[in-house]
This record gives sequence, structure tokens and C-alpha cells, in this order.
Amino acid sequence: MSRNDAPPQPVETMSAAQLERRQRVLDAVVELVAAGSLGDMGMKDIADRSGVALGTIYRYFSSRDHVAAAALLEWARTLDGGEATGAVAGAGGRAVDAEAVAGSAGTGGGSGGTMTDRLVTILHRAVRAYERQPSFARLLILAAMSTDPHASEAFAQMGGTVYDTLGTALDGLDPGERRRVLDVVGAVWYQAMIEWVNERKSIDEVYDSVESAARLVLAGFEPAS
Amino acid sequence: MSRNDAPPQPVETMSAAQLERRQRVLDAVVELVAAGSLGDMGMKDIADRSGVALGTIYRYFSSRDHVAAAALLEWARTLDGGEATGAVAGAGGRAVDAEAVAGSAGTGGGSGGTMTDRLVTILHRAVRAYERQPSFARLLILAAMSTDPHASEAFAQMGGTVYDTLGTALDGLDPGERRRVLDVVGAVWYQAMIEWVNERKSIDEVYDSVESAARLVLAGFEPAS
Repeated sequence: MSRNDAPPQPVETMSAAQLERRQRVLDAVVELVAAGSLGDMGMKDIADRSGVALGTIYRYFSSRDHVAAAALLEWARTLDGGEATGAVAGAGGRAVDAEAVAGSAGTGGGSGGTMTDRLVTILHRAVRAYERQPSFARLLILAAMSTDPHASEAFAQMGGTVYDTLGTALDGLDPGERRRVLDVVGAVWYQAMIEWVNERKSIDEVYDSVESAARLVLAGFEPAS
Repeated sequence: MSRNDAPPQPVETMSAAQLERRQRVLDAVVELVAAGSLGDMGMKDIADRSGVALGTIYRYFSSRDHVAAAALLEWARTLDGGEATGAVAGAGGRAVDAEAVAGSAGTGGGSGGTMTDRLVTILHRAVRAYERQPSFARLLILAAMSTDPHASEAFAQMGGTVYDTLGTALDGLDPGERRRVLDVVGAVWYQAMIEWVNERKSIDEVYDSVESAARLVLAGFEPAS
């Protein structure tokens, strides 16, 4: 898919003007995806929308997959400025979980199911963000399936931010346990999103799947209920 | 992708001659996939290889995705005639787990980790089958991602058989718990396969991922180790 053989310019080496152009490109992709144009969105459409020259876009991004993955990361980061945790957290979340969030942190294994409830709350909030803008679920899957290493890198970067956010719920676990728990919950979340996008699961089933996985996987770390 | 609007003929209504032709089609697809031709395998190639007319293939299958999913199910079923469990079990499996399989069944929560070890053994055997024939991992993902309802149905049918096989390891759990455990482990397995196919995980990491998930998710059901 790449138009040239040179690797894309690393973000760290970009000037303020380049960063501004790069940002316009990402904004354009987010807008195109939000408008439901992911399926037939080409680099030319992105150039038209952003007002950034096609050749410039190809200097910043190796492929459509790369720019799409970077835009997904962008979207996830700016989902809700009001929430410091940003990465996967959309506005809202299920009312039923509100108290769990408001409640005290606890240190895990402490007062009945708190760590689990907090993880479920964050997961539900993430699902809610995609429920509101299903196009981004398609974008997520495109990014996850891409074989472009630059897209993979952007996707992995997003994964890191997501893990940090989800990890805040798991303060009772050591880093190794936390990672193992999130690997499992993340896989369930990801598969549920694919099933939802492909219309084999309802969004309610997605909420239930991630909750069920979180409760199951943390059962060994919480006092028996 | 479909060439006509009529739904494909249900297998139950096929005559012996039709079933024989259908089988030849599936065999041809399995051969083509094994030969690494999945990427550019068209219905015409399948017709050429099987000696079954293109029009006939389209009467049996709605699309390339449908015939591919049916062939995957076929491949999984015939992986190893020597093993009654067939569906996901390839030949071999890791030597380190051999004793766990040979060991007595136990009823779960019984003698230290037995249920978990048995599940890990079956999972590793399934990974091994795909490790030997990576083309089928690509086919698996194609089938899983398909939006053709007939392909989805064939895929779901395979899922049922896989759950039955994996479920034999979980005799200490009630059906509801078993399903929840397998939903989680299955999601991890599936994501690990995608990562492997897309060269973001080594096959050893796939073995480790499914094992880690199985141990984590069953920790609450086994005595603490």
C-alpha cells in the first residue's frame, strides 16, 4: 500500500508545522470514519478532507492502515476530555456501576468484589464509547488485523494506554498478575467487538461478555462471594 | 459474492450423489488451503480442483466464505482419526503434558490442578494442529470474520464441536461455568491465533497465552497451589 520505500517520519522529529499538518490528517480520518466512510476511505479522500497534500501524508504515514491506526489512537485519547483516564473511557457508563466508581479504592482482596466492580465499570465505559460510534469498532478491527508494522506499532501504543487505564482498577494485583488478567479480559473484549461488528452479538451481549470475563478471571483474587 | 439469490441447499436434503460431490468440493478446498492457495483461491479454482461444476458449487454454498468455513469444519473433524475428540485436536501435543492426559479424571477441585492441566493439554494440541498447517489459521480467521450468515453458521457449528471437546476437561464444572470458562479461553485462543498469523506473536507465545488464560480462569475453581 505504501507509495514510497522510505519509512514514515517519526513523530518525535516533526516540526511544529509538521505536527499541525499531521494533526489535520488525523482529524480528517476521525471525521471520515465518524461519517461512516471507513469502507471506501482512500488516501486521496483523506488528502481532500484535510487539505494536506497526498505526498505529505505518505511521508507521515506508511499506508492507509497506518494512518487509520494513528487516528484510532487519536480518537481514543480525545474521547472525553473530562476524564483523565481518556484512552478507552467514553462518557457515561452504566448507571448501575456508578457507585462502584465513586466508592473508595480498596487494595484488592479487601471489601467484597471492589476490584472486579471497578474493572467492569471501566470496561463497560469503553464498550459504551464504541456503542456510540460503531464506525470506530470497525476501525479498531482494521487496525488490529493490519500487517503494516507501523499500524501495528500505533495499535500496540493504544494497547499500552488501555492497559494503564484498566490497570488502575487492579491495584490489588502485582504487575505480572495485572498483565495476565488484562491479556485475558482484553482478548474477550476484542472478540466481542468483532462479533458485534459482524452482527453476531448484540451490544448487550458485549457488555455481558466483558463483565463475565472480568468476574471469572478475578474470582481467584477476590474473597469468595 | 453469491451468484444466485436462492439459499444454498441444506446438507440434510442432499442425495448420496450430492453429498459425494459436496465432499469432493470440501476436499478440494482443504487441499488448496493446505497448499497455501487461500489468498487467491476463487470458486473457479475450487471447481477446477474438485471436478464439480461451478454452478453446482454455488447451489451447495452461498459464497467462497461459506465453502471455506465448511472446509475448515471438515479439516478440524478429520485432523486425527485416532482421536475421538477430533474437532480441535491435532496429532501430538506437548510431551510435558502427556502425563496430565494419562492421569485419572478427577472431579475438579480434587487433586491439585488436574482439571486445568487437562484443559491446557487439549488447548496445546489444538494450537499444535494449526502450527503444523498455518494456512488453516488463516482460514479460521477468514471464517470468523465473514459476514456471510452461512459461513457464520458453519463457524458456529465448529465452535460447538470445539466446546464439546474442551468441555471434557472441565468435568468439575456445571454447564454454565463450563461455558463461561470456554468463552474466555476461546477468546484468548482466537486472539492469539490472529496475532500469530499476523506475525505479532510467536507460536510459543500462543502456547503460553492459552495456558496462562486457562490457569487464570480456572484458579477460582481449583484448590490454591
